[in-house]
Amino acid sequence: MKIAVDTMGGDHAPEVVIKGVERARDEFSDLEFLLYGDEDQIKQYLTNTERMTVVPTQSVILGTDEPMKAIRQKKDSSMVMAAQAVKQQKADALFSLGNTGALLAAGIFIIGRLKNIARPALMPTLPGMSLEKGFNFLDVGANAEAKVNYLIQWAVMGSFYAHEVKGLANPRVGLLNNGSEFDKGDKLHQEAYQELSKIKEINFIGNVEADGLLQGTADVVVTDGFTGNAVLKAIEGSVKVLMSQLKHALLNNGSRAKIGALLAKPALSSIKSTFDVASYGGAVLMGVKAPVVKSHGSSDARTVYYALVQLRMMYNKGMLNQVIEYFDQQPQN
Amino acid sequence: MKIAVDTMGGDHAPEVVIKGVERARDEFSDLEFLLYGDEDQIKQYLTNTERMTVVPTQSVILGTDEPMKAIRQKKDSSMVMAAQAVKQQKADALFSLGNTGALLAAGIFIIGRLKNIARPALMPTLPGMSLEKGFNFLDVGANAEAKVNYLIQWAVMGSFYAHEVKGLANPRVGLLNNGSEFDKGDKLHQEAYQELSKIKEINFIGNVEADGLLQGTADVVVTDGFTGNAVLKAIEGSVKVLMSQLKHALLNNGSRAKIGALLAKPALSSIKSTFDVASYGGAVLMGVKAPVVKSHGSSDARTVYYALVQLRMMYNKGMLNQVIEYFDQQPQN
Repeated sequence: MKIAVDTMGGDHAPEVVIKGVERARDEFSDLEFLLYGDEDQIKQYLTNTERMTVVPTQSVILGTDEPMKAIRQKKDSSMVMAAQAVKQQKADALFSLGNTGALLAAGIFIIGRLKNIARPALMPTLPGMSLEKGFNFLDVGANAEAKVNYLIQWAVMGSFYAHEVKGLANPRVGLLNNGSEFDKGDKLHQEAYQELSKIKEINFIGNVEADGLLQGTADVVVTDGFTGNAVLKAIEGSVKVLMSQLKHALLNNGSRAKIGALLAKPALSSIKSTFDVASYGGAVLMGVKAPVVKSHGSSDARTVYYALVQLRMMYNKGMLNQVIEYFDQQPQN
Repeated sequence: MKIAVDTMGGDHAPEVVIKGVERARDEFSDLEFLLYGDEDQIKQYLTNTERMTVVPTQSVILGTDEPMKAIRQKKDSSMVMAAQAVKQQKADALFSLGNTGALLAAGIFIIGRLKNIARPALMPTLPGMSLEKGFNFLDVGANAEAKVNYLIQWAVMGSFYAHEVKGLANPRVGLLNNGSEFDKGDKLHQEAYQELSKIKEINFIGNVEADGLLQGTADVVVTDGFTGNAVLKAIEGSVKVLMSQLKHALLNNGSRAKIGALLAKPALSSIKSTFDVASYGGAVLMGVKAPVVKSHGSSDARTVYYALVQLRMMYNKGMLNQVIEYFDQQPQN
């Protein structure tokens, strides 16, 4: 398996990217890498070139670049060149820590949508208290608008992922809604509920609400990209504010609190690890012709490593073929 | 000012309701109360009847009742009778801890929408790290669908509330969106952005994202009821899970962690108080003909007291008249 890596995206590129790639290369003998980026910088960090091909690129898509414009105009960028390699079947999968919007555009317009998939969706894995491997949440922002058939396709793809890649026997699929009863939400959600109930290939458990997500109310949660984006950010923002409040409270309430914090440190670290989603991998762009994974710009080498493990699993389990087969057999709407 | 109180709603009714009402009565000599509920139960907790009128009612709307059906069929319930008192101008405001959907229905269909307001919205006050008095968030679920003119009306009402009731000189109004740029989101949000920019009576600061809310990115945040409901629940769920993880970690990691927890306890309590929104009052049903406030079913007497203080402020500041005057002068759409 060959993975095309955009080494120039993210806050600590290309150092952390190279480190993560080398760890994956050393561990899995079936992996080869095409490294797109500034040749001098890559070589500065690369310890050896076994199963590595460095492909020099001339520009970088920045976090502040307008996504569509960036992929059209920066054709010699590490991200666009890496996506082109996948399109031309020189590589089997794409990995980047760069501009999310640009990666979505590169995935959809360069690599291309899978036949029969109306709209690809972005799917991260988030922690759930009762879940060993977290839950999958899609769409979190690849699409600003949603239709019933998009939601259904996302539910099916999310369920296939949870089954094949995460190894869940019968993943529970929930529809994010503003109440648990079948008739909750607007027309879109009421219709989606009805349609999801009819699909025998998924274990649809009905509507789920946003306050139950982190408790592990479902293994796959389907929502429109607007709500999904807002809920994802609300969770991230809440965790961040609470952790910073916690830190502030322990460090600014006198020596007693400080000693307490010192004694409780290992226990407090265990909370952090609960919310450490690095081992779950990155966000998958579901519905394009090859596995594409995006990790946070702030990722470290460990996060990069796990995202590559995730891409390898998606490839080895043939998840995309399963999606293709399923949708080939469906009447198209 | 006379406040009609549904004493039978909530988990600890009517005890905590009566206690909160008596505290407000003792503190504010301009307040009178009409107490709707089971006469025997109310009298059991009431210490004295000064400025209190007990109005016996025969039934109670339960949390599990279907809202519209409940207000149609349980006409002798404490909630419906209290709302009728406001409609008949025997009382100036309505307070309840009961079924949220039923209270929305009672507010909209019994008390009635304000002239020119297309859709009333539910508006709680949530904590913001940099904000002394939290931020107002609407709509969090009174409406499953949204139109541009609803969002605009909610922004204006939220801004009036922040100015009049909370005393902010120039409240910053943000539109919840999936990015900060003006062209983010679907057509609804793009249009709403344009229209909000034109309203000179509000201080529109543009789009805000859900991860900034608890940091205090805006004083008033406007969103559709579906997204607002999901984001509110995502925040509540995240805070709940993190606090329970924190507790669990400190109590289940040996004696060292326990001693640490004991020493750090006052500091940890300070976090809880940051997220203690009781003093902000309850959720206001904005856009009906009288002040209507709903508090959580799990509220204690202190929360009830603050909600009554909030209703008194809304009434004394003449907030509704300001809303009526403003929308009387607008061209109607």
